[in-house]
Amino acid sequence: MAKMKLKSMTAFDERIATLKKEGKKAGIDAFLVTSEKNMKYFAGFSTLSMERFAAIVIPVKRGVPVVIVPTLEKTKAEEKSAFDEIRSYSDSDSPASLFKKVIKELKMENATFGVEGTLPFKFYKMLASKSLRAKVTDASSFFSQLRMIKSEEELRLIEKAASFVAEGIEAGTEFAKAGVTELSISCQIERTIKESGGETVPFCIVLSGPNSALPHGETSTRKLNEKDILLMDVGATCEGYCGDLTRTVFVGEPTKNEKEIYRIVADAHNSAIRTVKSGITAEKVDSAARTVIEKAGYGEYFTHRTGHGLGLDIHEEPYIVQGNRMKLKHGMAFTIEPGIYLIGKFGVRIEDNIAVSKAAAKMLSNTSTELLTV
Amino acid sequence: MAKMKLKSMTAFDERIATLKKEGKKAGIDAFLVTSEKNMKYFAGFSTLSMERFAAIVIPVKRGVPVVIVPTLEKTKAEEKSAFDEIRSYSDSDSPASLFKKVIKELKMENATFGVEGTLPFKFYKMLASKSLRAKVTDASSFFSQLRMIKSEEELRLIEKAASFVAEGIEAGTEFAKAGVTELSISCQIERTIKESGGETVPFCIVLSGPNSALPHGETSTRKLNEKDILLMDVGATCEGYCGDLTRTVFVGEPTKNEKEIYRIVADAHNSAIRTVKSGITAEKVDSAARTVIEKAGYGEYFTHRTGHGLGLDIHEEPYIVQGNRMKLKHGMAFTIEPGIYLIGKFGVRIEDNIAVSKAAAKMLSNTSTELLTV
Repeated sequence: MAKMKLKSMTAFDERIATLKKEGKKAGIDAFLVTSEKNMKYFAGFSTLSMERFAAIVIPVKRGVPVVIVPTLEKTKAEEKSAFDEIRSYSDSDSPASLFKKVIKELKMENATFGVEGTLPFKFYKMLASKSLRAKVTDASSFFSQLRMIKSEEELRLIEKAASFVAEGIEAGTEFAKAGVTELSISCQIERTIKESGGETVPFCIVLSGPNSALPHGETSTRKLNEKDILLMDVGATCEGYCGDLTRTVFVGEPTKNEKEIYRIVADAHNSAIRTVKSGITAEKVDSAARTVIEKAGYGEYFTHRTGHGLGLDIHEEPYIVQGNRMKLKHGMAFTIEPGIYLIGKFGVRIEDNIAVSKAAAKMLSNTSTELLTV
Repeated sequence: MAKMKLKSMTAFDERIATLKKEGKKAGIDAFLVTSEKNMKYFAGFSTLSMERFAAIVIPVKRGVPVVIVPTLEKTKAEEKSAFDEIRSYSDSDSPASLFKKVIKELKMENATFGVEGTLPFKFYKMLASKSLRAKVTDASSFFSQLRMIKSEEELRLIEKAASFVAEGIEAGTEFAKAGVTELSISCQIERTIKESGGETVPFCIVLSGPNSALPHGETSTRKLNEKDILLMDVGATCEGYCGDLTRTVFVGEPTKNEKEIYRIVADAHNSAIRTVKSGITAEKVDSAARTVIEKAGYGEYFTHRTGHGLGLDIHEEPYIVQGNRMKLKHGMAFTIEPGIYLIGKFGVRIEDNIAVSKAAAKMLSNTSTELLTV
């Protein structure tokens, strides 16, 4: 078993090694990982630590990571965890006493623990108990810094997830015609993605006519009319990694104004993508899209940021937004999704997924941005 | 505006009054509510307090509840909150300083705060900061005790949610035949629920043939065969309240063994429901179902509890399980869902939603439990 795991463990070992190095610099003695996404990132498996406590304790100086799970997750942990040190507690045991035991074995009483900002209070109390007296510090940024830079394998999974979404949107586009509801298009997209092998569809937003002007609108039972615009914003996952695309298409021939708006958004989208390379700041990429839309006179109708990071979370760092002077690095992955929203009339958004490479953006999605009429 | 709200606020005022009374007894000076479900329960609106801080501060002795939200949720809070005291902070402000200001205005420095066990560490830190020095205690049970007893209005919403699910399962049953995939049945159910007015479909599990023997199985692209069994376990919400039903039907004539198992599960289901009345313990209801299955010789194949509470959460107290000696009270709502799972062969589960009334169970779902062949 251990031997079979060796190859696939390399990435996890590297992540743990980097985390330990950063922890040492910051005076952290151990990390406590409890969120589903970070557990998956660091140990290759995850279980929701909410009703029942589950965690990875990662000692910084010496010792191996210890996985703590409820008994009913033990088999899953043994099969999937990158680390062999797995401890479990039954429903009649207290997770607090197992946790305390593990900490004492690691000689980590009075230690400084780096935790996630999301750590639930009821689990924090275990650390802060009188018998452990741990010092607790929010180490969320250590985790997000690491997760922000994707490996080739991670980028491949995002690309695969984006390809599922593209298939779904294509099926939705083919299905769309006057008389069909937003909801049935959404069902068609979701089914196509799952039948193609997509793991989950965390959201599948289909907005038609004036609904398309609502950046946070929800799929309704509205029927498409002739001459409607149709906006589809869809996410899917592949082994936990997210793809997230938007396409806007036209039912019948678009008006001159619709054509113009579509062209401006497509130009903004291209301009942002052309700007991407390592070393440039996140806000510069936002500016590249925003300037195109502002120059065309529609600045006030582009009411959101240009993009958000993608990975195990559908929204993570880096955020492509004014004020974010973070320099983009090779391996970062995010969306580019400018839009123009004319309330009461229609909205257009075009969204792709890209990664940063040295000299340019690497496209993780490959759907045409040409104006499409169904 | 305030006048229009008066009538609908009564329920919220009552909830706050009860909470205050219990808090006073326990030496709690104020409650801090941050979870989506508890915000909705106490103030009639909710916003996810995760990326951005949102909360209701409920002083126990004097003063009115104060709602704290990010600016972008302010309009929603003003429209929907049962309480008028709404404070907001912009993305460039710190929620911590607004929070501190509110606490100081309430003269609540050094006070004892009752929080939820789910309170994220990053928000807990605001309370435990040096300038506030609040004492923090886990008050989760105060909230769950209150939420466990449903009002007539809450029961009506669960009943409505269950009726959406019943419509969905009926549509899925009509759609089912040999050659159709689990996934397409699931899509049919979900679409039907949403078209009928169901708000969300938190899960829609369709399992056929041997998959039906997996109590935690996931909908797949497996095609139904002649002579397959088909299990549908579906949830839906109505104004946030959950309904959760399971039906098991047969594609073609069932075998003698299938018929027998179905009859045993239906008997267990009826037996549990007949046992329900106020004053009886939760585990007695579990025993009523379990005894029927054990006597028939299938005890080891009924591998889960008989039911779980239903409300704003799909799983909440009371749990209908061995060891739970809590006495059932008028207004509690939960599922009754015995099952028998013959791994590698097939499984049967029948699930309904009920409420406790003085002398008997009040059915919140009204679908037949007769054996059905499609």
